[in-house]
Amino acid sequence: MEIKVLKDIFESNEEMADQTRALLAEKKIYMIDIMSSPGSGKTTITDRIITALKDDYRIAVIEGDIKTTKDAEKLAKHDIPITQIETSLFGGDCHLESSWIRKCLDGFDLDSLDFVIIENIGNLVCPAEFELGDDERVVVLSVTEGEDKPAKYPLMFNSSQTLLLNKIDLLPYLDYSMDEVMQNIRKANPTINTFKMSSKTGEGFDAFITHLRNNIEKKIR
Amino acid sequence: MEIKVLKDIFESNEEMADQTRALLAEKKIYMIDIMSSPGSGKTTITDRIITALKDDYRIAVIEGDIKTTKDAEKLAKHDIPITQIETSLFGGDCHLESSWIRKCLDGFDLDSLDFVIIENIGNLVCPAEFELGDDERVVVLSVTEGEDKPAKYPLMFNSSQTLLLNKIDLLPYLDYSMDEVMQNIRKANPTINTFKMSSKTGEGFDAFITHLRNNIEKKIR
Repeated sequence: MEIKVLKDIFESNEEMADQTRALLAEKKIYMIDIMSSPGSGKTTITDRIITALKDDYRIAVIEGDIKTTKDAEKLAKHDIPITQIETSLFGGDCHLESSWIRKCLDGFDLDSLDFVIIENIGNLVCPAEFELGDDERVVVLSVTEGEDKPAKYPLMFNSSQTLLLNKIDLLPYLDYSMDEVMQNIRKANPTINTFKMSSKTGEGFDAFITHLRNNIEKKIR
Repeated sequence: MEIKVLKDIFESNEEMADQTRALLAEKKIYMIDIMSSPGSGKTTITDRIITALKDDYRIAVIEGDIKTTKDAEKLAKHDIPITQIETSLFGGDCHLESSWIRKCLDGFDLDSLDFVIIENIGNLVCPAEFELGDDERVVVLSVTEGEDKPAKYPLMFNSSQTLLLNKIDLLPYLDYSMDEVMQNIRKANPTINTFKMSSKTGEGFDAFITHLRNNIEKKIR
């Protein structure tokens, strides 16, 4: 008799993420996973990405929150497919898992999509441990959070391909060393793409949009 | 033969927290657990608490970080007992557990202490799930994180006795509604003590120190 052993949660999560990756390759859909501390600007950034790209690409959003559908409501004006995952319904989880992402994707018409944006739970720790099957991890770090975060949360910064250094409109009012944070970023991840921006004013956002366009084009053509 | 079953992680954590609570009652030591998102100002606040109270009370600090001893180093100037828990040594955990706190306490000379400050991991989710045996949970929320966090992270705000609304020196540069955040706070926890403050300028800090003094006096006399 074969004895079945429940797989390690990380292992089975990664298997599902790999399957999702294969599905998105077949369907030619680019997917990003936006992660950050609470209140770093993920939703405002998602809003700006949609505004900048929705005329050229067919976009869907997966919104992760522990509770409330506030973020999804903020994006509802765009009239694109949005699915909210409220993790308090599953015990209040602190991260998203690949099986939930897959369930959301299965609910979309994948033949009519080019680009999927996942907004993860506001948490600089746990989401980094769970592969979701995306093409690009985007970590948002607000300058109000201080310069030391890339050193203190190494997995998040080390496993992301892109970093958005947000809220630079507040720099004049903070004691903040751009040299120090850039040094910490390079130490944590020497190859990460870094974009300085203000999701409030839009400053610095165009360079990130150009970067996204290039990545989407490479995947969907 | 008796078969031992490993207890639910939360259950055994709470048992140890209860034991710690009994120990601290016997030793007449007041203990607080400071929690927040990354970069909300926990260390600066801890620094100010020590400065304000160290002439009157014998203080020790337990510093929680995933990686680095940066926060402990910032507090070293005070010449008080500080123990650093670096959770990357235990797999990079996203929260502190009561058994680790107990181990730190056992390393202090408890007969020479009145007040212990725990600075938890920067994470607005998971630390709230783990009782540590403290007398008071203090959640710090920076105004730069937006007004909606008490609604989106209900357990953290619901399980805390005190809320420090920090970085009010930045209010002139933010679109921030004090009415909205206060409404969200009251909804999440109608009895929470709320102090508006700037850990940078010190504005509003005295009222919190008075509150702490009262609580410490009640416990240690």
